[in-house]
Amino acid sequence: MKKAMVYIQSGGPTAVINTSLYGAIKEARNHPDKISHIYGSRYGIEGLINDNLFDLNQESDEAIELLKQTPGAILGTTRYKLPRDLQAEVYEKILATIQKHNIGYVFVNGGNDSMDTCHMLSLLCQEKGVDCLVIGVPKTVDNDLAATDHSLGFPSAAKHVINTFQCIAIDAMSYKKGKVYVVEIMGRNAGWLSGSVDLLDDGVRPDLMYLPEKCFDLEQFIFDVQEAYNKKGYAIVAISEGINFARSNKKNVRLDSFNHAQLGGAAHDLCQIIEERLDLATRAIELSLMQRADPIYTSLVDQNEAIAVGTLAVQAALDGKTGVMVAIERDTTCCGEYKCNLRLKDIATIANAEAFVPHSMIKSKSAMDDEYRKYLRPLIEGEVQTIFENGILKRSKFKYLKVE
Amino acid sequence: MKKAMVYIQSGGPTAVINTSLYGAIKEARNHPDKISHIYGSRYGIEGLINDNLFDLNQESDEAIELLKQTPGAILGTTRYKLPRDLQAEVYEKILATIQKHNIGYVFVNGGNDSMDTCHMLSLLCQEKGVDCLVIGVPKTVDNDLAATDHSLGFPSAAKHVINTFQCIAIDAMSYKKGKVYVVEIMGRNAGWLSGSVDLLDDGVRPDLMYLPEKCFDLEQFIFDVQEAYNKKGYAIVAISEGINFARSNKKNVRLDSFNHAQLGGAAHDLCQIIEERLDLATRAIELSLMQRADPIYTSLVDQNEAIAVGTLAVQAALDGKTGVMVAIERDTTCCGEYKCNLRLKDIATIANAEAFVPHSMIKSKSAMDDEYRKYLRPLIEGEVQTIFENGILKRSKFKYLKVE
Repeated sequence: MKKAMVYIQSGGPTAVINTSLYGAIKEARNHPDKISHIYGSRYGIEGLINDNLFDLNQESDEAIELLKQTPGAILGTTRYKLPRDLQAEVYEKILATIQKHNIGYVFVNGGNDSMDTCHMLSLLCQEKGVDCLVIGVPKTVDNDLAATDHSLGFPSAAKHVINTFQCIAIDAMSYKKGKVYVVEIMGRNAGWLSGSVDLLDDGVRPDLMYLPEKCFDLEQFIFDVQEAYNKKGYAIVAISEGINFARSNKKNVRLDSFNHAQLGGAAHDLCQIIEERLDLATRAIELSLMQRADPIYTSLVDQNEAIAVGTLAVQAALDGKTGVMVAIERDTTCCGEYKCNLRLKDIATIANAEAFVPHSMIKSKSAMDDEYRKYLRPLIEGEVQTIFENGILKRSKFKYLKVE
Repeated sequence: MKKAMVYIQSGGPTAVINTSLYGAIKEARNHPDKISHIYGSRYGIEGLINDNLFDLNQESDEAIELLKQTPGAILGTTRYKLPRDLQAEVYEKILATIQKHNIGYVFVNGGNDSMDTCHMLSLLCQEKGVDCLVIGVPKTVDNDLAATDHSLGFPSAAKHVINTFQCIAIDAMSYKKGKVYVVEIMGRNAGWLSGSVDLLDDGVRPDLMYLPEKCFDLEQFIFDVQEAYNKKGYAIVAISEGINFARSNKKNVRLDSFNHAQLGGAAHDLCQIIEERLDLATRAIELSLMQRADPIYTSLVDQNEAIAVGTLAVQAALDGKTGVMVAIERDTTCCGEYKCNLRLKDIATIANAEAFVPHSMIKSKSAMDDEYRKYLRPLIEGEVQTIFENGILKRSKFKYLKVE
């Protein structure tokens, strides 16, 4: 019997979050014998709760093509956390939507919190005996998902961070006597993204880099900044937004529904301290949303893998799999050349787990280890083609026609 | 008699500051009969003062080619302000360098403050009867240079701002209930760059935009933000770094040698006020150095004009001109199609003057006038080819071989 599929985007967007969706739609369209409808869930799991689905087959071919260069989560996303108790009212609503639209396949594209959503949904369907399969699609610029070599979106974010950092460093070099630049990079608990600037060559690489995996000592930081500045007349520092200074220093912290503190601002605070203590001119630079949203530095490897993962997710569901996530496994057998295989992994082992940068990959306060470099280098390879119209990047525009 | 030429970069870098230099070097190499040496002045006018010149002919062809995609000011720049009194000691040092190296041509690439440097140098040579010609090359992302339709660097900065703002807006749209985003854009006294986001289509354009040319009323701002937020569940605001709120709100202001206050931070301050007064989640985003340094969104129009202006500057000097700047004049005779002519303009009328956005071009607090759109649209047209190596943008690397 034919069944409908629903695709859910969850958590923070990435440069390729819509590219996985592209892969899934393309593959789903190859199976009209098994998939009756291709639906998008409006605003993450909330679309399933509130019966707010829209028909992706109503969207134009051009809109689907442009998904590959459209930032943001085009279906709409959420940070809604499902309760632990499967008897909770919200699950009745979800089951009602599933039954109403004869949904047989649900895809959840997200990070570790969203994989919890995926996990709860698959438990729900199994416990209630509902014939609906649930598959996870990995995504997070933080790259802290367990059980996968890397997460979709991280390579492109890293490529943006590396190239943007290089611009800042070159701009800084233009002055004989410059400032102390503190560049704040995403990464709540994991410093995968901050470490990426280590790939830059001498002259544009950071003088100092601070990842959340290592304890941040303010006094040592101030000493090191002065030392770096003395050497060349300016200094450039990379910090993760989640270094423990950021946490302890925050005054009025806003929490999201996953109880995560809203970060950002550590660079500004550190710059203020440097100005006061060292009397040096500073510039705090947050790479902000651009590092996850920018489509122009998308890595070709990331784009290709996003399409492949979206495709396999649909194939896995049609193959009867559920409660699994499509993971990326690096093939280390090919000598030197980068190759990845896709594997299905049990979602229970992934949900809510976090993958940190191993201390062995952090060489010193100014360099990552070769092991990290080897890991990252192949991921940022290859540039993508982007389409502009009158100087402005073309984006996908959806009609969002609601399914009644 | 053959004479040496010296090229000076001055003030803040732009995406095409090194592209004008590229144009000048290429043209200078066509005239070995007249130009004996092509020198770069290390760190702006300071290189001429301290006899710190290096030989640009020693730089590799690849390094010269890559100038077109290298951010920063590759010769090194400065914000040094020349004194009014031509008898000052510093002018003796400059004249000594000119005589020592038999310099006959000086090019000063910069904004309105740097055109003052250009002006003082040309006055000096004329008053002292030194046979050295001085030509200005326009450059500023602020676009506030007088006597030119626009300044080199502004179109690429605008293209970066527009495309980056679009990314932020699309990311913001991903959430059902979002934040108030305040995006801070460069522009000390002129809002040319902030106004650029008006070119975006509905859905991604700003709800509110504030240029330094208009008085900023905090109470009205708070009211307008709440209203915009109520309409769609989030709000996105563009502000110039130089709005009068930024000036009045600054506590410990650092001044540069032109006595300009170091700006930046207004978005953070406004967000804090919004959080306190409206209890809304916010995100302050400064486009920071990236908007002037990013080579990937370089406008093809800007790149081509930068090369043409650099070329003409050399031709003008060889033609015996001095005390002039190469200005861009829009040809309004061609129906619809954008065309520009280059003209030499008297530097005395340009130095220290500022061109503001006319009030007639600012339609309301959420839109620019059609006149502004017509002005800006052709400038951001066309994309440039960029060369990457292992996922990282290739930059020009100079040897900086000092001339003794």
